[in-house]
Amino acid sequence: MGDQKLIKNTKMVEVAEQLIPELYTREVKPMGSVSIIADEQALQGWKVVPDIESDNWCGRTYGKRDSFVLDFGDHLVGYVTLSIQSVGSPQDAPLKLKMTFGEMPCEVAESFDNYNGNISSSWLQEETLYVDVLPAELKLPRRYCFRFLKVEVLDTSRRYQVMFNQASCTTVSSGDDARVEPLPANVPEDIRMMDYIAVKTLRNCMQTVFEDGPKRDRRLWVGDLRLQAQANYYTFKNYDLVKRCLYLFGGMRLEDGTVGACVYEKPNPQVDDINLYDYALLFVACLHDYYEASTDLSTLEELWPIAMEQLEIGLARLDVRGIVRDDSTWWSFTDWQDGLNKQTPAQAVLIYCLRRGKELAGILGLDKERHYIESKIELTVKAALEHLWDDTQCLFVSGETMQISWASQVWMVLAEVMPQEVNRSLMDRVFEQPPSIGMTTPYMYHHFIEALILAGNYDQAVSQIRAYWGGMVKDGADTFWELYNPADKKLSPYGSFLINSYCHAWSCTPAYFIRKYML
Amino acid sequence: MGDQKLIKNTKMVEVAEQLIPELYTREVKPMGSVSIIADEQALQGWKVVPDIESDNWCGRTYGKRDSFVLDFGDHLVGYVTLSIQSVGSPQDAPLKLKMTFGEMPCEVAESFDNYNGNISSSWLQEETLYVDVLPAELKLPRRYCFRFLKVEVLDTSRRYQVMFNQASCTTVSSGDDARVEPLPANVPEDIRMMDYIAVKTLRNCMQTVFEDGPKRDRRLWVGDLRLQAQANYYTFKNYDLVKRCLYLFGGMRLEDGTVGACVYEKPNPQVDDINLYDYALLFVACLHDYYEASTDLSTLEELWPIAMEQLEIGLARLDVRGIVRDDSTWWSFTDWQDGLNKQTPAQAVLIYCLRRGKELAGILGLDKERHYIESKIELTVKAALEHLWDDTQCLFVSGETMQISWASQVWMVLAEVMPQEVNRSLMDRVFEQPPSIGMTTPYMYHHFIEALILAGNYDQAVSQIRAYWGGMVKDGADTFWELYNPADKKLSPYGSFLINSYCHAWSCTPAYFIRKYML
Repeated sequence: MGDQKLIKNTKMVEVAEQLIPELYTREVKPMGSVSIIADEQALQGWKVVPDIESDNWCGRTYGKRDSFVLDFGDHLVGYVTLSIQSVGSPQDAPLKLKMTFGEMPCEVAESFDNYNGNISSSWLQEETLYVDVLPAELKLPRRYCFRFLKVEVLDTSRRYQVMFNQASCTTVSSGDDARVEPLPANVPEDIRMMDYIAVKTLRNCMQTVFEDGPKRDRRLWVGDLRLQAQANYYTFKNYDLVKRCLYLFGGMRLEDGTVGACVYEKPNPQVDDINLYDYALLFVACLHDYYEASTDLSTLEELWPIAMEQLEIGLARLDVRGIVRDDSTWWSFTDWQDGLNKQTPAQAVLIYCLRRGKELAGILGLDKERHYIESKIELTVKAALEHLWDDTQCLFVSGETMQISWASQVWMVLAEVMPQEVNRSLMDRVFEQPPSIGMTTPYMYHHFIEALILAGNYDQAVSQIRAYWGGMVKDGADTFWELYNPADKKLSPYGSFLINSYCHAWSCTPAYFIRKYML
Repeated sequence: MGDQKLIKNTKMVEVAEQLIPELYTREVKPMGSVSIIADEQALQGWKVVPDIESDNWCGRTYGKRDSFVLDFGDHLVGYVTLSIQSVGSPQDAPLKLKMTFGEMPCEVAESFDNYNGNISSSWLQEETLYVDVLPAELKLPRRYCFRFLKVEVLDTSRRYQVMFNQASCTTVSSGDDARVEPLPANVPEDIRMMDYIAVKTLRNCMQTVFEDGPKRDRRLWVGDLRLQAQANYYTFKNYDLVKRCLYLFGGMRLEDGTVGACVYEKPNPQVDDINLYDYALLFVACLHDYYEASTDLSTLEELWPIAMEQLEIGLARLDVRGIVRDDSTWWSFTDWQDGLNKQTPAQAVLIYCLRRGKELAGILGLDKERHYIESKIELTVKAALEHLWDDTQCLFVSGETMQISWASQVWMVLAEVMPQEVNRSLMDRVFEQPPSIGMTTPYMYHHFIEALILAGNYDQAVSQIRAYWGGMVKDGADTFWELYNPADKKLSPYGSFLINSYCHAWSCTPAYFIRKYML
């Protein structure tokens, strides 16, 4: 790692850099102060109760060890300013302050000192700082992602206290609210609410790229990009931001030509050395969707060779039977689900992307490529039905252990290897006999919903959206989360729910489903 | 406190603000990394040992919980820059760093978490910060006062480590090294070393005012100013900085006209509400010394009414006998010495300042004032000899308990209430029968040395300088300290020696003694 040679197309990266968007800003003031109280009945064990005199945080005096929690009323991404003055004798020692930012109440209620998760504690949003001269308008230089802000006065001196006169957050996003069309009046309230939260989730992830989560990890991932772009076409319609992201992925690839799973913007654009089989292929689907939404032919023409190369790289993993090889040398994402075998979902992603590649080749008038891809679709579909379909159980199986998972069925439906009616009965079957290997992320749930719709089971799709994203709404989500398991609301893939992202790109697609299929 | 009405002369404050000096800067690199090892034999229990490969801190890779201590080789006041880069995969999470700055090894060796002193913990110099984008040239915005810098990598991520390419400190001072004359070649090495350290102490305290300590509390105190100014006239000769400070004190006074004990520069000049009997009077001595050194008559003319007013305020405290009243309503500094009664030292400070006031009145040709002051000198000297001199013990006594202290004898010598020969035998007497109420601060020791010289006991003065400041040199002082008790080197007036100032203005006067009397 780190020493890997990467392919860089400077011209493409320059195109991407020319497209860095200006951000829309908005000034938000806190609603007031709140108390966060342990409550086993509340989500994650913490209940938010407005303080009796919740405006009193402003203008009160605070001394050593005093603290308060501000509730900004909604999930925000932006820059915080705090006005502070001293009270009493002149300020004869620096002010020592601690600020803790939380998307969720748990983050400001539980001490970060006990954090023992397996990703970096540096994502936990806190600052300890010294103010040498009061009064001060403290402008914190870092961007935070939060609804709650805990302010702790760690020390003043015996001769002075402090007063906070104002707090505000300047939010940032490259999503233009004015471009989002209001829903028709007849849309049910719960659907309207889900759309509202989904749009907000997308907006807060839309920065100078489509970030996966504005709290963590803030990177542009091609799999997350694809879902955000789909939601974006039905909401903010920021085509240039998608174009920028496609050029970043196209302009910086791994040594063998694979589109990297994620890229960084700073200090200079660079691709990470993570190679995910499915994510690289989904570049093709993302380009397909972009062209369909924007009809931007020149971008399609320029990026097509890279898309075609992803298909070739994906096909190179086929074994003699025409099945994606499953061994210890690869990594395909699919879902965070423990124990999930990725072979069959990966085969399906390959077919799914081959189909979109074929369509693009057609648009470009590249008959040779189109026929070639068509032949590969036939090969991989045939192989899938022959080797991955279990005739006895009437389900797709995956890997050496013939694992039956939701992911395999869902992705094979999306790959359209069987006719719609058969897919519909397949989806019915998994509801009747739910595979023990379930679904964990909203990313996987998105594909599940899309599969239900594609299989013609629209009602089930809607009720599943209501059950899953609607569950987050009932649990008080301001934005949709990285992870949601109704049976375990403290679940984290990282060993601590304090570090989960609670505004996560791949969770924003209710807006896509609602606006594409439900209106 | 805080609501006290203060007198502000805007014109005088403007004169002061026009004199804000440009600071001289210098770039200093660390000598290398060191280990700080517990050692009961070492000063304050901590020994500094250069690391075997002490240049290796630079260019090595550090991961979570790794740390190192840089030794910059000398006491510095300034701004720190650190160059950091990531090593390994791209930086997929912020870098969380902690930096701890120490004037002394104890500050980087002992945890600040256990600090339980009685002044604000916010003076302890540490920062915890996050670096979102690497490589970075981290320029810390606050000024630090240190020789040792401990850098702790609190977290990176599992995918990258960090490397430090460079560290430097841009020092600041309003003292121009070029103006300090080198000592003649025949000056003994130990005296030369004391002068060197004293000049450095003064330089590091000379900022936009004469600070008392650049680490803590960074204020301009009139008592400290007087000693720094005296040393300054024999070294940096920055007359304008003294003038600025005199105008700050003159321009902002307490409600009754008293010169405040200290002033702040920021955010706007303001006087603190601390009233110290002796410090207010010493404004007169400070103005006297300034005129003597600079012959700046217009400043003397402009500030004279304020000086005269201080004498009047001081005289208003006399009782019918002509003795400074000692009750619970006042505060005079004199020294940090526990249990010290301030009456007799205060009487002596009054006489000392009346004498200088009389001289200034003479220079200004103000005969009426000169005669008035002369009459008050006679009154207070006579009263002192009648009521504060114990004929049996042949010592000055102070307060209701007739306390015998070093401070009373020293200050009465400086007040010249008795002829030189009598003063000399008085000083001899205190050496023979040392009063149990001793001396604690270098500030008090300064006056002790000055009294020995004035009493004609030059040899004793030199050997006392060697014993006291020379003791600090032997203990490894880079700059002279706020407090030095050879019998208890962990002593602190604040409950923790971590928060003592180890570069303190009132400790800089060996340069004055050496250059004024010993050359």
